[in-house]
Formats: sequence, structure tokens, C-alpha cells
Amino acid sequence: KMLGRVLCTVLFLGAFPSPAAASQGHISVVLLGATGDLAKKYLWQGLFQLYIDQVSSGHSFTFHGAALAALEPGQRLMFDVLKKLSCPPDEAPNRCAVLKDQFLKLSQYHQLKTAENYSALNREIETLLRQEGLKEAGRIFYFSVPPFAYTEIARHINSSCRPPPGAWLRVVLEKPFGHDLQSAQHLAAELAGFFREEEMYRVDHYLGKQAVAHILPFRDQNRQFLDPIWNRHHVERVEIVLKETVDAKGRTSFYEQYGVIRDVLQNHLTEALLFLIMELPASVSRAQEVLQHKLQAFQSLWALERSSAVLGQYQAYARQVQEELQEAQGYVSTTPTFAGVLIRSDSLRWEGVPFLLTSGKALDERVGYARVLFKNRAYCTQSGTLRDAGHSQCKPKHIIFYFGHGALNTPAVLVSRNLFQPVMPKDSWKEAEARSDLHIFGQPLSDFYVYSPVIERDAYSVLISNIYHGRKDFFITTENLLASWAFWTPLLDSISRQPPRLYPGGVENQHLLDFEMVSGGLAFTLAEPAELLSPSRQMPSDFRAIQPKFRQSPLVSAWAEELISRLASDMEEAAVRSVARSGQFHLALSGGSSPVLLFQRLARHHYSFPWQHTHVWLVDERCVPLTDAESNFLSLHRHLLQSVRVPYFNIHPMPVHLRRRLCVEEDRGTELYAKDIVALVANASFDLVLLGVGTDGHTASLFPRSEHGLEGAPTVVLTESPVKPHQRMSLSLPLINRARQVFVLVLGKGKHDITTLLSRVGHEPRKWPISGVSPSSGQLVWYVDYEALLG
Amino acid sequence: KMLGRVLCTVLFLGAFPSPAAASQGHISVVLLGATGDLAKKYLWQGLFQLYIDQVSSGHSFTFHGAALAALEPGQRLMFDVLKKLSCPPDEAPNRCAVLKDQFLKLSQYHQLKTAENYSALNREIETLLRQEGLKEAGRIFYFSVPPFAYTEIARHINSSCRPPPGAWLRVVLEKPFGHDLQSAQHLAAELAGFFREEEMYRVDHYLGKQAVAHILPFRDQNRQFLDPIWNRHHVERVEIVLKETVDAKGRTSFYEQYGVIRDVLQNHLTEALLFLIMELPASVSRAQEVLQHKLQAFQSLWALERSSAVLGQYQAYARQVQEELQEAQGYVSTTPTFAGVLIRSDSLRWEGVPFLLTSGKALDERVGYARVLFKNRAYCTQSGTLRDAGHSQCKPKHIIFYFGHGALNTPAVLVSRNLFQPVMPKDSWKEAEARSDLHIFGQPLSDFYVYSPVIERDAYSVLISNIYHGRKDFFITTENLLASWAFWTPLLDSISRQPPRLYPGGVENQHLLDFEMVSGGLAFTLAEPAELLSPSRQMPSDFRAIQPKFRQSPLVSAWAEELISRLASDMEEAAVRSVARSGQFHLALSGGSSPVLLFQRLARHHYSFPWQHTHVWLVDERCVPLTDAESNFLSLHRHLLQSVRVPYFNIHPMPVHLRRRLCVEEDRGTELYAKDIVALVANASFDLVLLGVGTDGHTASLFPRSEHGLEGAPTVVLTESPVKPHQRMSLSLPLINRARQVFVLVLGKGKHDITTLLSRVGHEPRKWPISGVSPSSGQLVWYVDYEALLG
Repeated sequence: KMLGRVLCTVLFLGAFPSPAAASQGHISVVLLGATGDLAKKYLWQGLFQLYIDQVSSGHSFTFHGAALAALEPGQRLMFDVLKKLSCPPDEAPNRCAVLKDQFLKLSQYHQLKTAENYSALNREIETLLRQEGLKEAGRIFYFSVPPFAYTEIARHINSSCRPPPGAWLRVVLEKPFGHDLQSAQHLAAELAGFFREEEMYRVDHYLGKQAVAHILPFRDQNRQFLDPIWNRHHVERVEIVLKETVDAKGRTSFYEQYGVIRDVLQNHLTEALLFLIMELPASVSRAQEVLQHKLQAFQSLWALERSSAVLGQYQAYARQVQEELQEAQGYVSTTPTFAGVLIRSDSLRWEGVPFLLTSGKALDERVGYARVLFKNRAYCTQSGTLRDAGHSQCKPKHIIFYFGHGALNTPAVLVSRNLFQPVMPKDSWKEAEARSDLHIFGQPLSDFYVYSPVIERDAYSVLISNIYHGRKDFFITTENLLASWAFWTPLLDSISRQPPRLYPGGVENQHLLDFEMVSGGLAFTLAEPAELLSPSRQMPSDFRAIQPKFRQSPLVSAWAEELISRLASDMEEAAVRSVARSGQFHLALSGGSSPVLLFQRLARHHYSFPWQHTHVWLVDERCVPLTDAESNFLSLHRHLLQSVRVPYFNIHPMPVHLRRRLCVEEDRGTELYAKDIVALVANASFDLVLLGVGTDGHTASLFPRSEHGLEGAPTVVLTESPVKPHQRMSLSLPLINRARQVFVLVLGKGKHDITTLLSRVGHEPRKWPISGVSPSSGQLVWYVDYEALLG
Repeated sequence: KMLGRVLCTVLFLGAFPSPAAASQGHISVVLLGATGDLAKKYLWQGLFQLYIDQVSSGHSFTFHGAALAALEPGQRLMFDVLKKLSCPPDEAPNRCAVLKDQFLKLSQYHQLKTAENYSALNREIETLLRQEGLKEAGRIFYFSVPPFAYTEIARHINSSCRPPPGAWLRVVLEKPFGHDLQSAQHLAAELAGFFREEEMYRVDHYLGKQAVAHILPFRDQNRQFLDPIWNRHHVERVEIVLKETVDAKGRTSFYEQYGVIRDVLQNHLTEALLFLIMELPASVSRAQEVLQHKLQAFQSLWALERSSAVLGQYQAYARQVQEELQEAQGYVSTTPTFAGVLIRSDSLRWEGVPFLLTSGKALDERVGYARVLFKNRAYCTQSGTLRDAGHSQCKPKHIIFYFGHGALNTPAVLVSRNLFQPVMPKDSWKEAEARSDLHIFGQPLSDFYVYSPVIERDAYSVLISNIYHGRKDFFITTENLLASWAFWTPLLDSISRQPPRLYPGGVENQHLLDFEMVSGGLAFTLAEPAELLSPSRQMPSDFRAIQPKFRQSPLVSAWAEELISRLASDMEEAAVRSVARSGQFHLALSGGSSPVLLFQRLARHHYSFPWQHTHVWLVDERCVPLTDAESNFLSLHRHLLQSVRVPYFNIHPMPVHLRRRLCVEEDRGTELYAKDIVALVANASFDLVLLGVGTDGHTASLFPRSEHGLEGAPTVVLTESPVKPHQRMSLSLPLINRARQVFVLVLGKGKHDITTLLSRVGHEPRKWPISGVSPSSGQLVWYVDYEALLG
């Protein structure tokens, strides 16, 4: 009845929907949490905008607000909001007034609390459609509710509110989508029990911000200019920044659980970064292609380490948490309210280009942007000339997607005039007037081509329109979400106990939050001022002093990441010393998983390592082809050799694969390797041998109760492993013990038992081969992490 | 007699030389060309300064001006100059007047024209010393004469004017020291017939400029700050610049023969660069160590190519040459008056850092400096803060050795305040007053620590003092000179016929001389304006159109450098196509010298080459260990593989060295290689085979009249070369002919005869194996340079 009335009004108005158009079908929009903050602030306005835009699309609409409140108070609350809906500036006031009136009439409040409530809603929709003789096009359920309510609502919708076959269901979900990889997987698995992937629209409202949404179209439309320069040869760095002046006051119950990385970096800034760095699909509007390229971009990123981030917390935060969460006076929060994170990619396109993500609360200004800064490859002979300065190749060159606020106070796309004049869609972006009084990134605005939206649209309006159009590329798929959590979770875990730097907030922060790239990671530029350090911030003193020896040899112990960094530095020192002494460094490396982190650290942090003079040998190898996934050499190659410059001749994989067959005695691979060692390594004494330890006490590929390699000549042997692949080649214990230095790396809780055992037993190589490692005239050092040492 | 008088005066003055000090001995300074321009302008003043500084050193002095003019007019001319000598500002006027008087009395004119003149000079010196009872310490002969006169003067000095045993001889030579490597070698060899290396002091007056002379001491005294940042990880670029406003008017007879590269870059700017980039010796004042490190730095520089430079000529130059040299109206000069040159090093320290050398006449300002610009590795969270801006890590960071003129108008050393406060010797450098009105490199001077000399000294004064002190590290040794010419001559040769860009001169140059780094070389940023192109500047049209086929196959022809660049691009295109088709690119490469340039070009210019998916095979190999200097693989490794990222597994050296012996039949290396090819290369059909041609018509290691590899199965064979090392391994002709593409590269005059012959003969592989190259279903392309094609 109500709908009938509205359609009459609409027909009376004339211009829009013709009966033919009306046959597109009916769409029911259900807003769950209809009286909440987000709904009040953005969502109803977005739905009204959708109605204004689509009233003549041929679809008819009804809007259903829902909440836990009973009908009467809920209705009152909701219509208080609806009455305040504003008309967009580009809309004729008369038409808008009529449309607003219609919109109110098409809107209805529902209490959704019990299963019966959901069934009732479903019946109402069905009845209405039957009465009006309308075909159903689809239903949108917008979850503007806390995540703990998701599962139950999802269950009800799935069981009671699915549209009939032929009509679609779209459920719109708001973050947070979990708290780390595990919780996100859990939530995703639950939702997958109720909805199909294509039915779910996860909102990251940054994807609705006009400047963010235009990154891919911009790259697509300006391929001719960008193709030659969108790579590591031309790009100096990429910055994605969201600075806020507000703090977390009043929201600490949420914020204390999340912090700035989960709140902003994991989602908004990461999405903007991926739009910038992903390989451009042939069509940027095909959601599936975009997603695939995004996932590939995730794969190319280096794993984050603790040193990848600098963290801050504004000084008032702890007090706000104490007050709002009724915590004790001495309560210490390590939740960061500021973070700078260095991200790197090993793709051919971006290798070596730093991506800097920064966000924080209580900073000096409110601004958000994604900025690609290009290298200066020019020399300007006439440096004094200021005329035509915007075109000088020596001025900084950047492309900036300006999210809003800040000096410009509008979304914008800026391209330095010395780069190129970009192609922009004239219907949606207009060239902004030149304002030479404004400066941005230290340059007058007149140095840029500046474009702003013809009509500024709120992110939620854009997103609601995209939900209506089924543009899934504007939303976060499950795969995308989990890839992002998989990327961020290791960093979140590693910093969970790390105290952030305190900062006063606002302009008083001065240079306190400036940071720099140092040896692969980030560090604050200024030392932390002593007066800001609270006494409770002391870290436990180092374990190294407690237990300086292990099995009568020097012991280095720390958390895994620091231990690896120590070991890598010690290796470089050994290498430099050896090269200074003999011109060469003969390094024998073990396989397995522990050294992978070490290899990566060496490849990425140790640019002065004398690789040109280093010979790389294998301690042991599995009898598989070198290109087999199980090969120790393959892992070594992937994580180290392909990133550093060891001469081809200095690389010595074990000859497990001769004459196209594996470890056949008569091919005499062991003899060959032993001869190579004798020929190249003075006195067959390696400068450094790196070993690991198995839970059974094996080391290299020398196994307990084995016949081979534990005694006798310093040679190379074939051995049998208790686990697959069984056949192995290994340096013998006597050969290892000729080394000048032997470092043993032991990592992880899983090694706690064997570590404890080894601390008690003597020299019993037949039981525990590692116990036989005892360089006859060299040095043995143990690198054991706290988890292995202390369990 | 005269000297006696002077010594009396000196003793009368009191303070200086005591009789004990006087026993240090006597020094005779002979200035050849005593009435010339340089002598008038700088040298006499420098000698006077030497006298002022050293009058109390214990040495006594006489000064002998010499020229071709007869005694009387020469004397008059010379004393006109001497009377005008000025007193240094830091000298008390009274003392100076007395010293000047003494200096005039110690000075004497000599006509030096004939052998007898030289003998007479020698006799006079001997007589004087005998009369005064003085021991001879040494003699300085300063050659301020044109280089064509060097040999004769040198001969006379050597035969008639050598001091007696126990006293030293120092001859001071002024540039030019030759015109290219050959002429410099010639001149050096001639001089070596007369003087020992330690007797020669070759002047590059830049080494006497205070800011240049302080580069090494600065690096030495600031090691603690510089050690971590003086490398490719922190330095963005190095610029060495000498800009002049004057043009060559009145000097074109000299300039037309030399041009800006020989006049400024080969000597002054190169020396400044080397001081900046050389490894720092343990002691920076030990001449021998400095020289050794300088020579090593020369070795690390990439060879210059034509594309390494941009060249300009101010528009008025051609007319000036026509007028001054009485050339015809249509005379075209290709002498550059402006050059920008990109130099790169492959040292571990500097790899990837561009060194830009720039100099020119008729520019907008007169200034000279060497500037090290550091990378910005910081992110400044509070960008708006201007307070304490000089320390912000986001401001540009540089260290500048300011030679003089320009905005500062004094020699200076500048260090950005956000870098460090440098250690400077307080007796010779003082902190300059802060002048915030002055801007330098776009920043207020207050952003820098600025030091200027306590006493500004002219370069020649500094150098004359250093000659006196025997500080050879301030002079150019023969080795150093020849290393520099060896470095510059290939560029000079390659540009000798290249027309420079014309520029109007002065501020009107605008951005016309701005240049950019593009794919390993330099190019002007702006296209050349048509109106400046004179019609005579047309280059001969391309030969390619004349002869598009060679032996019925496509022919690409050009000068060697362009040909190599075409070939490299075509190879990349083939690689990209192949990887797109099959995921792999199987490339078989030949040894020899011609491909070296190609390998270097591929390594340095082709960053998008899909190396990760490329398999590299050898076409042929010499039966020597892979690390032998004769090995084809070693050359390939050195010039290509060590600079690109081909996975270890994809590199396939020929197995010429098995079981530690070379090409023994029973080790079946050929079989092994053939099996690898069959296993990895689809259909044993390489995607691309690169061949060369010998003067005898051989290709790969397939030789005329050989039994092996010309017919039969597609396989790998052992062959015999007529030249050492005789034993070879090679792909057979039938295997080569299975390739999808075969490119044959032929370079140089030496190949003209075989090229001519091949253009006439048919398929006769037993006479000329190359004539048997004829891919059965692939494509053959000839890349022959003009010299090979046209002789």
C-alpha cells in the first residue's frame, strides 16, 4: 500500500521511473544498527543519496532500519535521524524535498532481536512485493553492529531472510574483521557457513574515498606516462600517511584492544599501498583480476620484523585508559597510537624502493595522502633560473593521491608539472584553480597539476552506490583480508610487549616522531628524551650475563630476532677478518629452517659482507636434484645466494646429482666434494661452519647410532636419515672439527628438551652427534634463543 | 757577491736565518717563460710568497728568470713585473718592503736559447755558490712555456744544468700534457729520457686550490662521521662543477684543439672526483699511498661511452674561430665548450652512485664546487615545523667543497647541519659568519657549517710551496696522468665527429643545457630547438637502407656502439617474447672479445631483461679451468653474469673440467652437456644463439678443414683450434642450426676481408664454417659494424 502511494507520487512528478523501467525489480535495504553512530553519521545519508541517484534506474526500493530497541522508541529514534538528512549541494532543492519525503515514506523501523523478528521481516517484504506485484531484484543487509553480534545475525538472515531464487543477497560487513590472522580466519570461517563469498561486502571505507578509489583508474588512464617510470629505477619512495589531531579519548575501550596498526595500517593504508604497487591488470574494473594482482603484490612483500616499525604513544593515553577502563594507577599500556612502518617488496619492479606507512593520533595536523616521490635524475645547469620553475627537472617530482583535510581540505590528485599532464576523466574530476599561496610538500601548489572531484562524495555514499552496482572490487574479499592479516600479524606479535615512545601530542612533538631507515629497518631519529621515560618502562636485563657458557663454550642468547641479528653480525666480522688474513672466506652452511631467517638477514642487512671473496660450501644435502623443493641448496639459493654477489666459481653445491642420478656410490660424489675442499680450502679447515641441532641431537646430516661420519678421516660421507628423504650427503664430524670457527644455531621451544639434555651430557657423538662437535684448534660458539634455552 | 750582500742584509734584519739554519743549503729557482702571461699573473707572486715564507727556513735562494729574449729587453720586461709584486695582506708592510727589496736583488734574468746559454747558467750558479761557500740543496726549473718547447729545454737541463750529486732537481711542468693517451704517452716517454719520475712535478693548479687540497685531509679528519655514510647506501650523487661566464674569445687557437673536456674535465674535475671517491689511505700525506689508491679508483670506473656525455657549444664560438683562425665562412667546429659527463664506478662502495662532471663557458654564473649529496632516508612526521629546520633530517644533506666565486666568493667547505659538525684544522680554516641572506643550493647558508680559509691563498702560491717541500702528492705523476688519459680518450674519440648542441650563452641558456640520466647515459632534457640547428649539421644518412641483406639474411649495420645497442635491444625483445611464450629463454653465448661490449651493455642498460627466466649456455669453450683467464665462461661471468640475476641452476658452463682434468674423452663431458641440453631445452632448439666470425671464417669453435661438428648429429663436440689453447668444446653446426634465432656479430676493420669474402661465397662449411650457419626453421640475422662492412 505504502509503496503504491509512493509510486503514484513518483509518476505524478513525471520525469522518473517509467513502468518499463520499474520492471527492473525491487530492492530491499536492511540497515542493522539503524540508530547507531555510524548509521546516524554516514549510512542513512548514503542510503538517501542512493535513492536520489537511483530513483529513476528502474529499481524500486524500500529501506528497513533495524535495531534491538522495541518498535516505538526505535521508530522515534530512527526518524529523528531521517528528518535531519541533508540534500546534496548539486541537487535542486525542490526535487530533493520531494525525494526526501518519498524516502521517509519508503523507510520503516523493525525490531530485530529474536528469530521470529527476522521471519516477520521476511514476511513483510514478501507481502509488500506480492501486493505491489513487484519482482524481487535483491536484498542488502548492512551490518552496522559490533562484530560479536555478526554470527547470530548472519545465522538468522541465512535461515529466515534469504530472497527467493533469482534475486541476490548482499550482506555488508564493517570492520574490525578480527584482531589477528587467527581470529580473522575464525570469523571468516563462521561467516562462510552462512554466506557465499560473492554475497559478502566487507567495507574498508578508504576504498570509497574518492582519491583512493581513483588510484587504479589513474594508473590505467595514464599508462603511457607511467609505464616507463613506475618502477624502482624512477621511484624513490612511496609514502602512505594518515595523520590525526584527535586522540583516542572516549574510545579507549576499543582502541586499547586495537591500536593504530590494526585500526589504520592493516586495512586503510595497506589497501592504498596495494593499489599503488600491484601490477596493473588489463582491466582495472574486473574485480577478480584486481584481486589476483593484489594477492600477488602481498606475496612479493618482505616479511615484517620488529625492526620494521617505530611506535609511539601520546602521553595522555595511559591516563585516559586508566580513567575510562578503571585500570589501576600503575597500569601500563603498550598500545601504539603512532606507527611508522617500512615495507619492502622483492618484485622486479619495486625491489629496493621503501614504502613508508605512517599514522598516528594527537599529531600536529589532520591529513591523509598516498605519495609517490620520484628520483631526481637530472642536473640543471642553470640553477639560478626561477622562470618556468614548475617544469624544471631538478624540482621534486611526485604524484599524490590526497585523501582530504590538510592544506587542501579536499580530496585531490596532484601531479608535478615536471612529470606530465595527466589524463583525468572530465566528468568526475576537474582541474582546481591555481592557488600559489598554498604550499604542499614544500612547493607552491602551482608546481602541480591539481584535480579535485567535480562533486565531493562521502566515502559511504560511494560505497553504498558500489554495493548497489555489485562492484566487488571496492570491497575486501576474504582472501584479501586474510592475506593482509597474514602480512601484519607477525609484526603485531613481535611488538606486543614493546613499549612505544611517549610523545606529548600536537605541535609539541617537534622532531620526536621523525624516523629514519637504518640497516633495513626503522629507528627514531632523535634519542628518547630521558624525562619522558617512565620508570616502569625498564626491560628485564639481558640473560646473556646469567649464563655465558654452554657446554664449556661461549653462549650467546636472546630472543630469536635479536639472536639472528647478532649471529649475522658475528659472521660478517669473521668474514672480514678472514678476507683480511687470507683473501678468502670459506663458509660452510647447513640446511633446515632455522638458517632461513639468518640467510634473509645476511642478504638484506649486510651490504658490506665480502661476498666477492667468500666461498659457500654446504654442510649437508639431501639426495634430491638441486632444484627440488627439498634441496638445502635451493633454500640457500632462494634466501641468500640470489640476493648477494658470490662469484659462480665460489659456490659449491654438494654433488648429489651426477650423471642425472642421485647419490650413487660409484659416481663418487663424496670423493669429488672432498677433493674440491682439499684443493681450495687451506688445510681443509673451513673458516666458519654453521650448524643446527635436531631434536634427536643430530647435526649436519650425521644421525644418532649411525656408522658414518662420526669418526675417522675428515671427509664427506653418505648417510641415512630416519626421516625422508632418507639419503643424505654430509661433512663428517672430523672434517667439521678442523674448522677455525663453528657456530651452532638453536631456535624455538621445540628445541628446549634437547638443549636441556645437551647442557648435561658429555662427549657422546654416537648418541647425540652434536655433542661430538669440538673443533680441535678452532672456536665453538652457541647461539641459542630464549625459547630453546628457557622453554 | 750579490748573494753575500743579501745575506748581510738579512743578518742585519735580525730575526732570520741563523748561520746554523743557513747550512740547510742553497736553492736556485729557474723560471722558464719568465715574462709570459702565467708568470706575470701568478708565478712571480708565488715565488715571492715562497721567499717570504721560507726566508728563515735555513735555505738561501736565488731566482732566475729565463726567456728567449736577449738580456737587456728581457731584463727590463721581467723587472717591470717584479716591481709590481704585491705584499700579502697578512704581512707587516715594513718587513714586506724589505723582503721585496731582497727578492729583487736575488733575482736575475737569463736568455736561454742555445745550449751555450744553459751551460752559462749552470756555470753562474756554480760560481755563485763557490764564492759564497754555500752547499747546494737543489734546483727548481719551472717550465712556463708551450709544450712543443718541452723536449728541447728538457734535453738542455739534463745535459747542462743538473745539480751536483747530493742536491736535488725538480722540474715543474704545466699542462697540457698531451692531447690524448697516445700523445701523452709519447711526451711522457720523451721526458723520461731526461728526468727521473721523482724529479718531475706536473702541475694541475686545481690541486693547489685550497678547497680541493682539503678534500683528503677533510675525509681523514672526519673519518668517524664519514665512515658509515661515505658509500652507495647513503650518497645519492656526486657533482663536480666548474661553470664559467667568460667564453673562449681570443683563445680559440688553443681552445679549438682542446675543448672543454681536455681543458677542464680530464684534469681538474677528474682529480677532484678521485679525491672524493678513492679509498682513503692510512696516511693521506704519503704521496705513494695516495697515488696507489687513486690508480685503483681509476680502475674501478666504467669505461665511458658516447652516451656518457652531453655536449654543447655556445653560438658565438664558430664565428670566433672563423675570425681568429681565419677559417672559411662555412667552417664547422665540433669542439665542445660545454660538457656534462656521467661517470660510474663498480666498486662495492660506489656502485650505482652517479658522478656528474659538468663544465662550460658562456654560462650564467662563475662557480666551481664538488658536492656530495646524501640520500634522504628519513620521514619527518611533523612536516610543518620550521623551527630548528637546519637539523631536520628531511632537509637535503650535502658536503660541499666550494672552489670559489659564485654566491660565496671564497673557497669554502660546507657541511649540512643535519649531518655533523666537522673537525677542521683551526690554524688554516675558520668558521664563517652566518649569513642567512645568502642561499646556496636552494638553502639558506645558515643550514650549513661553513668554513673558509684563515688566509686565502692563490693556487700557485700553494703549489710553489709544495714544490719547495717536495710534496709530490700535490702533483700529477706519469702513471696518474696516463690513467686519466686512458679513461678519457675513448670518449674523446667517440665524440670527435659529434656536433654539440648550440646554446645562446649566459642566462639565455635557460633549461637548454639541463640534462638527465637515461638508461645508463646522459641526454639533454629539452629537445633541441629547431631554429638553433644549422643546416650543415646534418649527419650522413643511415647505411642500413643501402644494404638490408647479407647472404640472403637480414643485415643490421651501424657504427660499433650503436650496433651493440641495437643487438642488445633485439636480444631483450627475443627474451621477453620467449618468456611470454614458454616461461623460459634459452640463450647460447659465444666467447671472444666482440661480445664483451655486448655483455656490458646488457648488464648496464637492460634492467628489464627477464634474467630470472633465462638459461645461459655456452656456444664454445676452451679446455681450461673455468677460473682461467682464457676461459670463455670467466669472461662471460665477469662482464655479464656477476651483474645480473640469473639463478645458479640456469647457468650452464661447458663441462671442460671434470674430475680435475681437462677435456678427457672418457670423462664424456660433451655427452653430459648434450644430455643437459636435451633435458632442459625443448626439442634441443635454443631460443637464441649468438655467434661471432673469425678471420679464417670459423664460428663457435668449429674450424675450417676440421672433421668435427660440421655435419652429422646435433651434438656437442671436442675440436682442435689452430691457435692456443688448441683443445676446445663446441656446439656442433647441426645443433646450432636447430635454434629459433641465430644472431651473428661481426665487429672491426680486421673482419673486413672475411666479411667481403662471405658476401660472395655460398654454403661451404668445410672451408668457412660460418657459411654453414643456416637455421633449418629459425631466423638468422647479421649484425655487422661499418668498419667490418666497409673497411
